[in-house]
Amino acid sequence: MVVTEMKRIALGVEYDGRAFCGWQVQPDVATVQSALEAALSRMAGHPVRAHAAGRTDTGVHGATQVVHFDTDANRPLTAWVRGVNSFLSTGVAVLWAREVPDSFHARFSATARHYRYLLINHPVRPALWAGRVGWIHQQLDIAAMREAAGLLLGEHDFSSFRAAECQAKTPVKTLRRLDIAQEGNLLICDFSADAFLHHMVRNLMGALLHIAKGNEPPAWITELLARCDRSVAPPTFMPDGLYLAGVSYPPEYALPSEPLPRHGLI
Amino acid sequence: MVVTEMKRIALGVEYDGRAFCGWQVQPDVATVQSALEAALSRMAGHPVRAHAAGRTDTGVHGATQVVHFDTDANRPLTAWVRGVNSFLSTGVAVLWAREVPDSFHARFSATARHYRYLLINHPVRPALWAGRVGWIHQQLDIAAMREAAGLLLGEHDFSSFRAAECQAKTPVKTLRRLDIAQEGNLLICDFSADAFLHHMVRNLMGALLHIAKGNEPPAWITELLARCDRSVAPPTFMPDGLYLAGVSYPPEYALPSEPLPRHGLI
Repeated sequence: MVVTEMKRIALGVEYDGRAFCGWQVQPDVATVQSALEAALSRMAGHPVRAHAAGRTDTGVHGATQVVHFDTDANRPLTAWVRGVNSFLSTGVAVLWAREVPDSFHARFSATARHYRYLLINHPVRPALWAGRVGWIHQQLDIAAMREAAGLLLGEHDFSSFRAAECQAKTPVKTLRRLDIAQEGNLLICDFSADAFLHHMVRNLMGALLHIAKGNEPPAWITELLARCDRSVAPPTFMPDGLYLAGVSYPPEYALPSEPLPRHGLI
Repeated sequence: MVVTEMKRIALGVEYDGRAFCGWQVQPDVATVQSALEAALSRMAGHPVRAHAAGRTDTGVHGATQVVHFDTDANRPLTAWVRGVNSFLSTGVAVLWAREVPDSFHARFSATARHYRYLLINHPVRPALWAGRVGWIHQQLDIAAMREAAGLLLGEHDFSSFRAAECQAKTPVKTLRRLDIAQEGNLLICDFSADAFLHHMVRNLMGALLHIAKGNEPPAWITELLARCDRSVAPPTFMPDGLYLAGVSYPPEYALPSEPLPRHGLI
């Protein structure tokens, strides 16, 4: 009798959101989950179901998405990285693999998610960066944007920034970080929270840019929060510049520390 | 009788090399020149011929390519930027337009060209940066690479780094700058010269990486130069990470100063 032992493997995954209709499996379209499950199943020799920390939308990029799956296949960890990558198309790659205990769940064990929004503020639309940055041509008041960002920190009911399709149990989330750095014409907006509602980062970007364009004062963001009504807040901003930058887990899982960009490029 | 006056206009142009089969017009394929000439002709109301500072190859990106054309159409400069951009596909955009005297020629007036090569040195192939960076997984000796780079500076016969198809009158060029900066897993290699031979930057990258991998000592580059023979040098490196970063002209033309990256992203 052959005794096979189930193992749980965690992966760091990078992808270009333009190549996929979001994370989640859907019929008849290319999604990150379906591409990854096909490659993992081929390597495992059995059907594999992949679970992600965050289900990114169409056009949203993964700088480090974290995924787990179960397998009884006995493979070295490099097989789940370079081996699986050889089965994946150019727009997606596994960055690392670690064996984790059964208690680990990519989604439910996560203690924080980190998103980065890259925005070009320039009169001319980006060509080299098309699909990889948000773009706004109007002049922005960055000081006002930062003041409003500060008012969003902490625990709030974020219903005014929640998509109608959102399946989260509660709209109350704790925003721990919202930093806005400027490098030439580029704004780098870093968001960290315990969890995010559906479209929350893009909806917050829409409201912050409404303020940065001088349409409302920074304190207006507090009013939006208080209203708990999506219809009073500005539209969802474009997905192009949004990156899932990393996911934090309890230290006992010893996963590669996040959020660390892989290199100086995003 | 209507007297029309011919004007010469210079443009800064940005493009993603993956979207085009290089700069130069070719039958039946999308090139930057054909896309730009079609858009300019539409705005001008007459056929326009565009001349570029450097004819980039398939897969090579334009961070700032400089182009000129002649027209008798009387349009504000913004028409040649935002107006023309509305006729161009997402992978290419005009950054700026300036009226220049007849003596200006994008190619023949240039006093220096600046190329940047972005290289990721990481065990895993890039997904987010596929097509936008070169990739090498072996460990590199950057100090050796820099030492070899220093030996390339100055006036040399670069025949060992010249493609067979090269149409330059002379293989003697003056390399004024070859800086290699490191940011995490990213190498940023900046090349400046009066002019470059066909494939010269990619051929130099091939030789520098051969040395960085420890196959030859830095002084070997001097030997390659002395041989004046393409067949003795390592293969042409991939185009993916190569950007025409800017072009310099005499100050009397008062073009936007180069080489300046448009933002902190390349």
